[in-house]
Amino acid sequence: MHEILFNFISKYITITEEEKKAIISLGVFKSEKKGSILLKEGQFSNESFFVLKGCLRSYYIIKGEEKTTSFHTEMTAINALNQTSEKNIACVENSIVLVSNPELEIKMFEKFPKFESLCRILSEEVLNKQQIDFDLFKILSPEERYLNILKTKPDLIQRVPQHQLASFIGVKPQSLSRIRSRITAKEKTSIR
Amino acid sequence: MHEILFNFISKYITITEEEKKAIISLGVFKSEKKGSILLKEGQFSNESFFVLKGCLRSYYIIKGEEKTTSFHTEMTAINALNQTSEKNIACVENSIVLVSNPELEIKMFEKFPKFESLCRILSEEVLNKQQIDFDLFKILSPEERYLNILKTKPDLIQRVPQHQLASFIGVKPQSLSRIRSRITAKEKTSIR
Repeated sequence: MHEILFNFISKYITITEEEKKAIISLGVFKSEKKGSILLKEGQFSNESFFVLKGCLRSYYIIKGEEKTTSFHTEMTAINALNQTSEKNIACVENSIVLVSNPELEIKMFEKFPKFESLCRILSEEVLNKQQIDFDLFKILSPEERYLNILKTKPDLIQRVPQHQLASFIGVKPQSLSRIRSRITAKEKTSIR
Repeated sequence: MHEILFNFISKYITITEEEKKAIISLGVFKSEKKGSILLKEGQFSNESFFVLKGCLRSYYIIKGEEKTTSFHTEMTAINALNQTSEKNIACVENSIVLVSNPELEIKMFEKFPKFESLCRILSEEVLNKQQIDFDLFKILSPEERYLNILKTKPDLIQRVPQHQLASFIGVKPQSLSRIRSRITAKEKTSIR
């Protein structure tokens, strides 16, 4: 599992055997079962969660109903820094997660400054991507949001429960079923 | 104007006179008139825009209509890195903007490594904040979004045209008028 992380890091910076050992020695890798909750509404949090394997979901409970706001699969991160969390974070699948916090990072940066470069580059990349996702969510209709997932992240549709996916694109499960039927019907028409 | 930036930076890192001169010498400060366009849909961009004074707006043109997705006031940034832009960025007010790009930043980091720390910290902060904003947008109704702006950023309501604000919270201008009337009516009732 460590190798997956080191391969990912190698895309951004060179990493020596010493540095790999330093990362492993931190003991920040956690194996979590499907359904387990990493963060609960009302808890104080100063952590970031980087997904090595599996899928996390963030959701809010609004008037007794779960509202899913994001999914995080391999090589993506979700932060809950310096806040009493209003959201919940749970595992949609059995997951392996790197759990970090600012104090730990600062210690690492002092010893290995290039990890600060890595975190800077990754944060900027994620920020850029997240800004585009945020914009897309605002300008697309629910059907277009679903089509966008089909195009950019088709595996997600198989990996998460349909009611959570419906909530994520901002509709009721019945509406998601209708959206899927419409898309299937269009595909059939275009094949004929 | 430089002093505003240096005061802001001082909250995160110590900054020497030499470093201040280095920043000024980059020539990255641009004065832009209200209405001027910093980035147009279809242009390739690898820049980030940090607002020192004024207000920027990002918007998309969907079926001939402008759809506002974000406003950026003092000490906030908007990135358009390594992409053929699908959005437009324009000045809502006369603005002073620090326009940067990755190549320029790398040169600065080589000379003054602590600027990399600054960019890392700022990116993580913005990412954290943006994730919360994204979640809030998804879980709030348009009226709640407006109330949230009233609470967290009341000056924005005076600073930007109402039709842009309506688009930003996801409604037609007439609906925003109705939302404002309802809120005023509620306030009157609660005073009585």
